[in-house]
Amino acid sequence: MVDPRTSVITERLSKIKRIIAVSSGKGGVGKSLIATTLALTLAHEGCKVGLFDLDFTSPSTHIILNAEKTPPKEEKGIVPPNVHGLEYMSLIYFSGDNPAPLRGADVSNALIELLAITQWGRLDFLVIDMPPGIGDVILDLLRLVKRIEFLIVTTSSLLAFETVKKQVSLLCELKAPIIGVVENMKMTKSDGVRDETEKLGLRFLAEVCFDSKVEESIGNEAKLLKTSIGRAIKQVVEKNILS
Amino acid sequence: MVDPRTSVITERLSKIKRIIAVSSGKGGVGKSLIATTLALTLAHEGCKVGLFDLDFTSPSTHIILNAEKTPPKEEKGIVPPNVHGLEYMSLIYFSGDNPAPLRGADVSNALIELLAITQWGRLDFLVIDMPPGIGDVILDLLRLVKRIEFLIVTTSSLLAFETVKKQVSLLCELKAPIIGVVENMKMTKSDGVRDETEKLGLRFLAEVCFDSKVEESIGNEAKLLKTSIGRAIKQVVEKNILS
Repeated sequence: MVDPRTSVITERLSKIKRIIAVSSGKGGVGKSLIATTLALTLAHEGCKVGLFDLDFTSPSTHIILNAEKTPPKEEKGIVPPNVHGLEYMSLIYFSGDNPAPLRGADVSNALIELLAITQWGRLDFLVIDMPPGIGDVILDLLRLVKRIEFLIVTTSSLLAFETVKKQVSLLCELKAPIIGVVENMKMTKSDGVRDETEKLGLRFLAEVCFDSKVEESIGNEAKLLKTSIGRAIKQVVEKNILS
Repeated sequence: MVDPRTSVITERLSKIKRIIAVSSGKGGVGKSLIATTLALTLAHEGCKVGLFDLDFTSPSTHIILNAEKTPPKEEKGIVPPNVHGLEYMSLIYFSGDNPAPLRGADVSNALIELLAITQWGRLDFLVIDMPPGIGDVILDLLRLVKRIEFLIVTTSSLLAFETVKKQVSLLCELKAPIIGVVENMKMTKSDGVRDETEKLGLRFLAEVCFDSKVEESIGNEAKLLKTSIGRAIKQVVEKNILS
């Protein structure tokens, strides 16, 4: 049987010009911080931007944005609250601070429900914070929302980059467009990740030096934009996304 | 219908004295490095130890151990190869270096299959490297293998510790025993995580300072045991696990 919600999803996303999924092979590479910064930076440039937290493994953009106090409204679906200029939606509005022990099928179901009920309206960009790895969320999004562009985040660590290679190989096989790779939390000078990225035929977008101010900026979006992540993402937006 | 494999699992694990799952709310906190170090350290202390990589999101213990070249043997099930003194098993033996795009139900199925076919034999400890978060693997393990003890890894970051709280709340609700919490990759002096851990009624096992030698030790188990992770886990083993 066809899930009736899947036909609603295309309609719900029809007024969004571009959808960018910020993704990583492994967790803990700073994906949520980069997705949030990307959304905030695009908004500062005058774009109308949504941020959609689909990291069911460990949702955290609400902590970065200090966004818990503004719940969505119901109106022929769910209208995302405006948080620091972003149309913002997260699973956290439904699970609260409780643990959300979701099996894959439940994740898939929650994802389809969120896609089907959220009223994004007209947007220039929807930025999605993805869960790490290759599971239900990425497989469902690739199936249901065909025109997603991927921005991939890694650290300099061999363990992180090995998982990036696997994700890239899957995305290439499925012909999903990849904007490029950001190397985050860099601590030593080395061109390893840049070289490996170019070997994969992908664009190396930026290296972001480790910056202890990032942790202090959690919950304060103005501070976040002034960290090494903020500065690097501003350049990526100007050079690789808006131009 | 009852899956006939589930009744085999108890039998397969019956000669294992203790099962320790190394777990985290978020990825990228060093869970795989700590699970591998814990297994190696217990083996150095004279115990017979298995290491079971069930991190379907981003399996990486085979890279840490440089273990890919020693495949398991078939003999009334699958006999794990011996890698640096550990009985070692990972999904990677079946997926190779290819991406493994598994939906939750497939993860659950692969987990049950691995539990049902692996011939661990007599072990003092089985150390499990868990995937991040609360998904199919943790729910199935809690259902199928009742006597698992959890060792929880976090970093000092607020984002990591927030997800730890959720995992602890689920484990407490399900009455799963928790050995304690290790704070990894610590960069500044602060008792924040220690205090929060004790507020949750858990034991704070160790703080592991950030050590740039850890990255260099990937693929070299002797070097890994000499890093800050190796030194801290040795103390945890002596004080909190063997005593």
